[in-house]
Formats: sequence, C-alpha cells, structure tokens
Amino acid sequence: MDAYRALESRFKRIALVNETVAMLHWDSNTMMPDGAAGSRAEQVAELKVMSHELLTAPETATLLHGARAERDLGEWQLANLREMRRQWLHAAAVPGEFVAAFSKACSECEMAWRKARPANDFVSVRPRLERVLTLAREIAAAKGARLGRAPYEALLDQYEPGIGIAEIDRLFDRLAKSLPGLIDGALAAQARRKEPTMPPGPFPVAAQNRAGRMLMERLGFEFSHGRLDQSLHPFCGGTSDDVRITTRYDEKDFARALMGVLHETGHALYERGLPADWRHQPVGEARGMAVHESQSLLIEMQVCRSREFLEFAAPILRDCFGGGGPAWEAENLYRLGTQVERSLIRVDADEVTYPAHVILRYRLERALIAGEMEVADIPDAWQEGMRRLLGVVPPDDRLGCLQDVHWFDGAFGYFPTYTLGAMIAAQLYAAAKEQEPSIPQAIGRGDFAPLLGWLRGHVHQFGSLLWTSDLVHRATGKALDSGVFEAHLRERYLGA
Amino acid sequence: MDAYRALESRFKRIALVNETVAMLHWDSNTMMPDGAAGSRAEQVAELKVMSHELLTAPETATLLHGARAERDLGEWQLANLREMRRQWLHAAAVPGEFVAAFSKACSECEMAWRKARPANDFVSVRPRLERVLTLAREIAAAKGARLGRAPYEALLDQYEPGIGIAEIDRLFDRLAKSLPGLIDGALAAQARRKEPTMPPGPFPVAAQNRAGRMLMERLGFEFSHGRLDQSLHPFCGGTSDDVRITTRYDEKDFARALMGVLHETGHALYERGLPADWRHQPVGEARGMAVHESQSLLIEMQVCRSREFLEFAAPILRDCFGGGGPAWEAENLYRLGTQVERSLIRVDADEVTYPAHVILRYRLERALIAGEMEVADIPDAWQEGMRRLLGVVPPDDRLGCLQDVHWFDGAFGYFPTYTLGAMIAAQLYAAAKEQEPSIPQAIGRGDFAPLLGWLRGHVHQFGSLLWTSDLVHRATGKALDSGVFEAHLRERYLGA
Repeated sequence: MDAYRALESRFKRIALVNETVAMLHWDSNTMMPDGAAGSRAEQVAELKVMSHELLTAPETATLLHGARAERDLGEWQLANLREMRRQWLHAAAVPGEFVAAFSKACSECEMAWRKARPANDFVSVRPRLERVLTLAREIAAAKGARLGRAPYEALLDQYEPGIGIAEIDRLFDRLAKSLPGLIDGALAAQARRKEPTMPPGPFPVAAQNRAGRMLMERLGFEFSHGRLDQSLHPFCGGTSDDVRITTRYDEKDFARALMGVLHETGHALYERGLPADWRHQPVGEARGMAVHESQSLLIEMQVCRSREFLEFAAPILRDCFGGGGPAWEAENLYRLGTQVERSLIRVDADEVTYPAHVILRYRLERALIAGEMEVADIPDAWQEGMRRLLGVVPPDDRLGCLQDVHWFDGAFGYFPTYTLGAMIAAQLYAAAKEQEPSIPQAIGRGDFAPLLGWLRGHVHQFGSLLWTSDLVHRATGKALDSGVFEAHLRERYLGA
Repeated sequence: MDAYRALESRFKRIALVNETVAMLHWDSNTMMPDGAAGSRAEQVAELKVMSHELLTAPETATLLHGARAERDLGEWQLANLREMRRQWLHAAAVPGEFVAAFSKACSECEMAWRKARPANDFVSVRPRLERVLTLAREIAAAKGARLGRAPYEALLDQYEPGIGIAEIDRLFDRLAKSLPGLIDGALAAQARRKEPTMPPGPFPVAAQNRAGRMLMERLGFEFSHGRLDQSLHPFCGGTSDDVRITTRYDEKDFARALMGVLHETGHALYERGLPADWRHQPVGEARGMAVHESQSLLIEMQVCRSREFLEFAAPILRDCFGGGGPAWEAENLYRLGTQVERSLIRVDADEVTYPAHVILRYRLERALIAGEMEVADIPDAWQEGMRRLLGVVPPDDRLGCLQDVHWFDGAFGYFPTYTLGAMIAAQLYAAAKEQEPSIPQAIGRGDFAPLLGWLRGHVHQFGSLLWTSDLVHRATGKALDSGVFEAHLRERYLGA
C-alpha cells in the first residue's frame, strides 16, 4: 500500500490548503475590511496554485497509477482512491494556464454583471458572458473526454458526481409535467383559506440572532465547532471541525434570516457529521452539492416549515421577540412559512414554484454548453421558459436572466443540484419518519436527537463512500424518484 | 537581473503564504471556536512547511548565488537581496526535522508551563524547559556558524538583525547603572505629590471600544485596512493591507485596554506605512522587533502618556464614559498614566522600572545560551537579579521566573527588543520634536498628521532598507544611545 499511503499524505496536504482557502473565503465575507480585497485575492490565488500544483504534479499521476495495482485496500480506501482519481482527472484535464484564463474571464464577467443587473443591461455583459461560455465549452469538452462523459455531464460531475443527464432528464421531465397542476392546486387551496397575519415588527438584530442561535443549538449545531456571523450573501463555510454559517438580517422580517439560518444549519450538520476517521481525505468529504442541498432543505423545508416544528418554535419566537396574540400562533406561522406565489426571482421562490426556476436554468445551460443556443438567445428563451413553466413573464432582464450570478461566474452545471437536493430531502425525510415514526413527535418537543441520529447513520457518516444514487437507495430502500417530493408538495400544499 | 527577478517571484509566494498564516493566527485568537484548535494547528503547520520548502529549495540557493553576480541592481534591490539571503540563511542553517523537533518541544513545554505557572511549580516544567534549551543552544550554534555571529547573536538576529551583543551590552550596562537612581528619584518625586484619583467605573466594554476606535482613527489608523477585536492577549496581527489589532477589556479599569489599544495602534501604523512598492518582498517588511516596539512605545509612552495628548483626549474620554469632575481632568489622568512602582510582573511595569525586568532576562538568557547557566539555576538567579536591579524579591516563582511565556516557548533573544524599542522611541520622538517643533501642539489639538508624516518619512517608508542603527542615525542625526531615553525619564518622572 506504499503508493496509496503516499497519496493519503499528499491529499491531506491538499485538503489542509483548501481548508485555509475556505477560512479566507469566510473572512473575506464576514470580517475583512474593504481595503484588503486586493491582497486577499493574491493570497487566495497563491494557495489555489499550491493546491493545484500538488494535485497535478507528475508524482500524483504516478502514485495513482501505482496504487491501482495494490492489494489489501479496503472498501473505504478503494473509494478514497476513486475520489482522488476523480479530483485529479478534473484538475489534470485542463492546463493550468487555461484554468487561469477561465478564472480571469469569470471574475471580469462577474464584475460586469454586478453593474449590468441593476442597470437591466444584458447587452453590456454579453461579450464577457460569451467569452466565459466559450471557455466553459472547451473545459466541458476537455473534461468530458478525460472522464468519458458528455461535456455538460463533466461539468455536473464537478458539483454532483453521482447523477447523470439521463437521470436528471427523467426526474425533471416528470416533475415539469406535474408542476403546473401542483402550482394551480396549491394556489387554489391557498385562496380558499384566510390569509395568514404577519407578526408586527420591528425585529431587532440582537433578538433575531438570539432566536437563531437557540434553534441552531437545539438542532444540534455545536458552537464549540462553529460560528454564526453576518454576511451579504448567507453561506455555510469553514471546515468540518469549524463550520461557519452566516445570515443577513432584515429588521422588518424575522423569518427570512431565521429560515436562512436553519437552512445553513442543515449544511453545517452534514459537514460536522462527515466521517472523522477520513478527515482531510477525498472520501471523507461531502458527497456532492445535491446531497449537501438535501441536508439544508431537509432541515429548512421538510422539518422547520412543518407544523410540529412550529409548535415547538412558536413559544421560543414569542419569547425572543416579545410577541403575542394570533399572529404568533404556530398555525399562523405555518401558513406564513408555506405560502405559494408565482414569482420571478428564484432565491425568493417557495418550495412549490422553485423547481420551475431550476428546470428552466438546467435546460438553458445544457443547450448553451451543447452549442444549441448562444448567449444572445438567452433573454428570449428565458421569457418563453418562464411563461411555459411557471406562467409568468419577467418584464425585464433584471427580473429575468440577469438575476443569478452563476453563469456570469462560470458555474454551469450547478443549478440542477438545488432541485435534486429537494427531491432527495423529501425522500430521505419520508424514509426517516417511516423507519422511526417517533421523529415528528420528538421534533414537536424540540428533541432533534432522533432525526440527527438517523441522518448521521444514513447520510453524514458515509462521506463520499457511495455514489448519490446508492446513498439514497441504501437509506430509503428505493431509487431516487421525484414521486416522494411531489407527494410531499401535494400533502402540504393541496391536502389539509 | 533574471535570477533576481525569479527571487522576487519566489519571495512573493513565500510572503503570501506567510500572510495567510498571519490571518489564521489572528482568527485562532479572536474568532475560532475551541473545538477547531486541532485542525487549525494542522493547517498552520502545513502552510509553514510550504513556506519553508519554498525558502530552502535548492533553486533558492542557486538563484541567490546567481543574483550576486548580476549588475544594474539598485539600492532597494540590493537590500532586498541581502534580506532574502538573511532569511534563507536562517532557514537553511537548521534541517527541517530539527525545526520540527524544536517546534514540538516548545509547544509541549508551553503547555506544561500553562499548568506550572498557576501552580507555582517550576520543577514540573524543568525537564521540558531543559529540552527546549538544549535544542535552542544547538540552533543558536548552527545559525551562528552560518551567519558568522556568536550563537546568542544569531538568535537575536531572528528578531532584530541590526543590533549586536556588544551594542546591547553598552546600552544596557549604562542604563542599568542609572536605573536605581532614576527609580529612587521618581518614587521620591511621586511621594511629594498628592496621589491621583481613579475615575470611578464601571466602564462598559462598548464605551471602551468606542473610545479606543475614536482615538485610533484620530491617530491615523485606517479602518478600511484593519480591525480592532478582542483577544486574551492583545497583539497586532494581520498584514500591512489588513492590520488587525486586539485588546482585552476590564470594566473596572478603562486605561489598561485603552493604553493597550494605543500601543497596538503604534505597531499598526508602522505596518501600514511600510513601502507599498515593496509589498510581499523581504525589504518591504518591518525592520525588526526593536524598531516595531519603538513605534508602539512612541505612540503609547512618548505620545499618549504626555500632557498634550491627555489635554486632547480627556474630553473625549469624559464624553465616552459620561464622566466629570477632578478625576477626569487631564492633569489627573497624566498622573495616573505615569505612576511608578517597584513591581514583580514585567507586563504590568511602568516605563521607569520596565527596563530592569528586561535587563535581568537578557542577562539570564545570554548565560543560558552560552552554557554558563542551567535551567535549574534560573529561580535563584531571578531572585538575586530582581533584588539587585529593582530592589524587590518575588515571593515565589509564579511572580518570578514563571511569569513570561517566552523561554518556555523557545523565544530566546526576544526580550532585549522591548527596551531597545523604548530607547529608539525616545530618541526618535525627541528628534521629531526638534525637527518639527509644532508636533506637540498639534497633538494637543488632536492633529496627529505632523507626527505621522514624520514617522512615515523617517521610519516607516524604509521597511528593511537600512539596518536599525543606520535608520536611527539617519532619522535623528545620532547613533542609538540610552541617553535620550534616560533624559526622557528624568524629565517626565523627576522633573516637574
């Protein structure tokens, strides 16, 4: 196992450098003074070069080749080797100068997008997005050739390696078919009910922070291994031993920050639950972004927007915000947390309409990478897609194709993970409740140990040992399917 | 200039990695949750290995050799080359495994010291300190041989390269001779005056923080390039573009945190004023710890404990703390800030007695490194030294030789920089006032621009271009001498 052992040392070094990059990223978004942005960019670039050099050095290839012939490797070691190889293939598929050119094109395009969005000026950012797309297509082709996958699938593989195009098509096509009926039904059911009441604010930041921390702690977040801070865009960062989540407060609406905190707590619990014995090894890392998103959505959507959770949380919220009366009743909070609306902005969308936003983006980016569509076609295709999938049409590009940073920052292949995550979350939570029927009652008492125990045992502890489809099958006894997610939507939004 | 240019690239990479280590260090002491200590230690160790590898790689030696023959190098480039060579000599003098063994021995000893100090148990930490000393002697010998300096001088050179043993002896011996008379005189003068009154607390942390930030900003600290946070032990960290200082608050005593903040602000102004054109190059770094300490002591001791500063600051402090009456008069605050006492603990010592603490440690550590003294001799030598230098004897080791972490953490050669810094501060500030007599009046109005301009022009902008002695000579027109510092003490403490 000499080659394998040497690979473990090498990948541990890579992981430690990457952890440092994660800490700098957190700092840049929470603590760093503005004037330090330039030197911070240089620090991060240097660390990324070092990590990339370690990964693509000729020794890595030699060791990977050598380790293939080694015997006595156990299940985890073989999976570790597979993940090492995958990371190496991605890194080695594209020459370093090309990566640098892409990175530069992306940051220039992202800067142009920051101006173009508020100005509703798609044309001004078009040339830069065209450059990004050209390079992304080349990267997709190069990685696809190395991985033996279709170009777009090679990009997907960077974020969620376990699920291919055929499967996403099957899942998304089925959901796209049910979605119009689901949305109509949810809106009709909602119209039949009395409108929920917004609890009156303002909600001081300190009280919101206290409420968030209390609920995080109850859910199982360990403040000895993590932090909650503020940033412009909420995220879960840091490392598995030091998980740092952030939120953004709005004193007029406590629910937004709170639901954001609970969402990030789901990510954080996953990071923290990854197998400690495989820390700093590829197999010890999170499986992929679809599984990651399943953990945040399971906590935020499945659990924290449920009646049982709000029964438990309502008194805590009343206490933190000094509230009382009907607006603070659990049932009213439940209604507020499950309102449905045909809206234009993905990040503000509810659980029912969200998939329409994602399916649109998935179809467009597939066509873009395949060369079946060009940047100039995006605005019209966006409008048409929104009309067909959701029945609303954005009045301009600001509320349309300029709203998300992803493409402008070169992230093609990321969007599907949001809705894959929602499907996996629904399927996992249904299985958890079936296997341990006491979970919802425990949640109603504020006891999250049974749920967390189940997630640790069926998801977190596996790291990247299994492909996503195997992970889901093993945990739920069934292949990944959009049916459970649809059933969940039907029950919550069309049922009672 | 090919070799020189290649060296610049290489040392820039090293500097960027070192900056990252500095950020992690800041984070560990201000933000990091306890449970992350283990993985943080691994991250820092990995980055240090990478930095060390870049510095000691065979290519570095080859390039340093090649660059010596290159022509057309300007003054700054030649100084840069000299500093590169010095850093390389230190790193290459000791094999990597030896550095790792020393680092391990130091952290084990430091952990033992953390228990031994409160327990007043020198014997329990003795074996570990012996191990540290043995390795420190070997390192001193190895570095001394490479640098062509005495072993202890090689250790000094790590912290303050510009001042050798002969000069320190000359400065310290003279000061040690005057010190007993100065201390007696200061105490006698103090006894003749009415005792100053402590302003009544408590002083809420938020108000202390506000006062600190206001004064920092007035002094020239740029919050767009830095932060003020809390930590157990105050320090100035981060980087020149992102200077992060910390303090520790005591609600019963505002002066402690405030003077700490002003001290660290002095360090911060120096870091920020280093030559931007030479950022990430050895010649662009701070000259050494004696010069660094001169900048903090110039601000804290020379400026912020002066009558003119307190005339300006008293109304601000009254405003921040809602105080009034005689205790908040500038003259009373001046008396409080310049009280003298024969005390046992260095970090609590005043400006007059502080040098006695440092001279004692300097003499002992020189003897320890030279093999003229052993660890077992420290407690008795400490007592005897305190009696002779300061006229007080610690009742136990907790208040004696166990008080400072330095030796237990392997930092031999650091102590003298404190008092060298005090001497340099006095000499620089005297010269600044002589050259720009308006400086004190400007300070009285809260205008620090003339002072900061002088410091930028005569100290900060030179980075490591000049040796410390040349820097002092050029700025003040005189060689470094203890006389100006003594005159300052005499004037402030024996004069009016």
